[in-house]
Amino acid sequence: MPAPSRPVCILGLGLIGGSLLRRLAPEVPAFGYNRSAATVDAAVADGYDASTDLAATLARAAEVDAVVVLATPVTVLGPIVDAVAEHAPACLLTDVVSVKEEAARIVAAHHPGARYVGGHPMAGTAHSGWEATDPALFEDAMWMITTHDDTDADDWLAVAAIARAAGSYVVPAANDAHDRAAAAISHNPHLTAAVTAAVGAGESLLPLRLAAGSFRDGTRVAGTAPELQRAMLEANSIALLNTLSETIDRLVAARDRLRDHGDVAVLVEAGHRARLAYEEIAGGAVMPIVDVRIGDDGWAQELRRQAHQARVWMG
Amino acid sequence: MPAPSRPVCILGLGLIGGSLLRRLAPEVPAFGYNRSAATVDAAVADGYDASTDLAATLARAAEVDAVVVLATPVTVLGPIVDAVAEHAPACLLTDVVSVKEEAARIVAAHHPGARYVGGHPMAGTAHSGWEATDPALFEDAMWMITTHDDTDADDWLAVAAIARAAGSYVVPAANDAHDRAAAAISHNPHLTAAVTAAVGAGESLLPLRLAAGSFRDGTRVAGTAPELQRAMLEANSIALLNTLSETIDRLVAARDRLRDHGDVAVLVEAGHRARLAYEEIAGGAVMPIVDVRIGDDGWAQELRRQAHQARVWMG
Repeated sequence: MPAPSRPVCILGLGLIGGSLLRRLAPEVPAFGYNRSAATVDAAVADGYDASTDLAATLARAAEVDAVVVLATPVTVLGPIVDAVAEHAPACLLTDVVSVKEEAARIVAAHHPGARYVGGHPMAGTAHSGWEATDPALFEDAMWMITTHDDTDADDWLAVAAIARAAGSYVVPAANDAHDRAAAAISHNPHLTAAVTAAVGAGESLLPLRLAAGSFRDGTRVAGTAPELQRAMLEANSIALLNTLSETIDRLVAARDRLRDHGDVAVLVEAGHRARLAYEEIAGGAVMPIVDVRIGDDGWAQELRRQAHQARVWMG
Repeated sequence: MPAPSRPVCILGLGLIGGSLLRRLAPEVPAFGYNRSAATVDAAVADGYDASTDLAATLARAAEVDAVVVLATPVTVLGPIVDAVAEHAPACLLTDVVSVKEEAARIVAAHHPGARYVGGHPMAGTAHSGWEATDPALFEDAMWMITTHDDTDADDWLAVAAIARAAGSYVVPAANDAHDRAAAAISHNPHLTAAVTAAVGAGESLLPLRLAAGSFRDGTRVAGTAPELQRAMLEANSIALLNTLSETIDRLVAARDRLRDHGDVAVLVEAGHRARLAYEEIAGGAVMPIVDVRIGDDGWAQELRRQAHQARVWMG
């Protein structure tokens, strides 16, 4: 896998954008923008190339034909894309936003005709800001990259090269499939963690005093800042409504069975099978996508097909 | 806190009973019984005092006035209590079963008039059997001990001394309050982990391939053997029905709100508050129960009152 052949311009130096800047530089020419002077000062003090001047940063990106990475929260993406359209309209764009249909909608609305291939690294912590950045954040992580039938092969390769340079595996997927998957394995778990915590807390402190491992692990993500959780979940509300409804349906069936027959076999066994399937994938060898050359007829479809079998693109 | 003044006889040398034998001996005279010769051989090979002869073990317990600890699964408790009633009827009994009303019902049915003070150490792993035993399992754990208005003070102290000798803090509680709390912070989390896993797995392997920390932690306990989960959850079905119904009600309210207004604020914020309350208790200093002498008028009620404020008894 060759290193990215173009510089990388990162807009937003929070946990994801900042970690990416620290991971890529100096092997890959990379520079960044952040609105906050404190963040930029911290990045510069740590030896990175950063600025609070969005227009100048984008003019520089246009000059060196950088790939521009949108790394701001989805809630402020619109004005950033406006600036890209104004100052670096020909640059290839990608992003690291956790919802892909909404991100694509914003890019299309604010920069029609943009060269844009979306992405989403499945990495993060409950912390945020430059202090939380970590160049190892993406090591062995799964990095979804939008892979549609009309995706430009060279642009796809340029974005995939960034994910690989950051240490991640590339998971090719359609935006809608990504958003459904993210609802199932990331956004819905935030809601089940929240309800587990809320029900567990009860009326006195006795339950929390008795709480041990199952409560600690099962509610961990409920500790994430509510505004960050809301921004992520509410931007994927349609897919989340579906997984939440399935969650409710399965719990109602379990309650009826427990009430009428005294057993929880169906739900517990379904959960156990699913957990074992996850452990097999997470604990097993990472299987590469094989026998496909990016740009050949049907390449995007074939990448997606193999990704549905849990294979990843390694270049 | 004085060490237990009487020997301890442990019936069942699985994860909990075996770990307790390893923790107590040799400072506290302790011996055990297990039905399986392989387990007993392993315990004896490790230098512990164990037997497959239940009648002889109980006769010995009666002779030395040992405290008898019931450490078998709740599903086979009845015949074990029958044997206690036959061979060691005067011995003080306790248990480590995760549901306290059901355990008390079984003891009362099979050994009317038994001297019995129930207990439940909040400790465990997803593993089981002698190989999984660990003398440090109870270190700093919370060990609930049945504390009713008619509980005998000396018997309570004798059982509490075992918990303290094992390295745990004593949480005094009524059986019904314990079972409601266990449903809220242990049994309900098993069901929410199961549903999170089942919904996450979906139809292709793409979601599980993209799964990261929130899914990994939120579904961990779904990996426990289904028969162990069922035995625990189904023995606490009434309390679990209540927490499961509350879980469903909160999720239905969240779904309606998400569908009609596009936000998940109420549930996410309630979950966040509950998680912070848990972190404060779990991460803070352990606060002792103060100003009460076991056996004084109203001692049991006062212990329970302070336990509802998250305080623990340290002797």
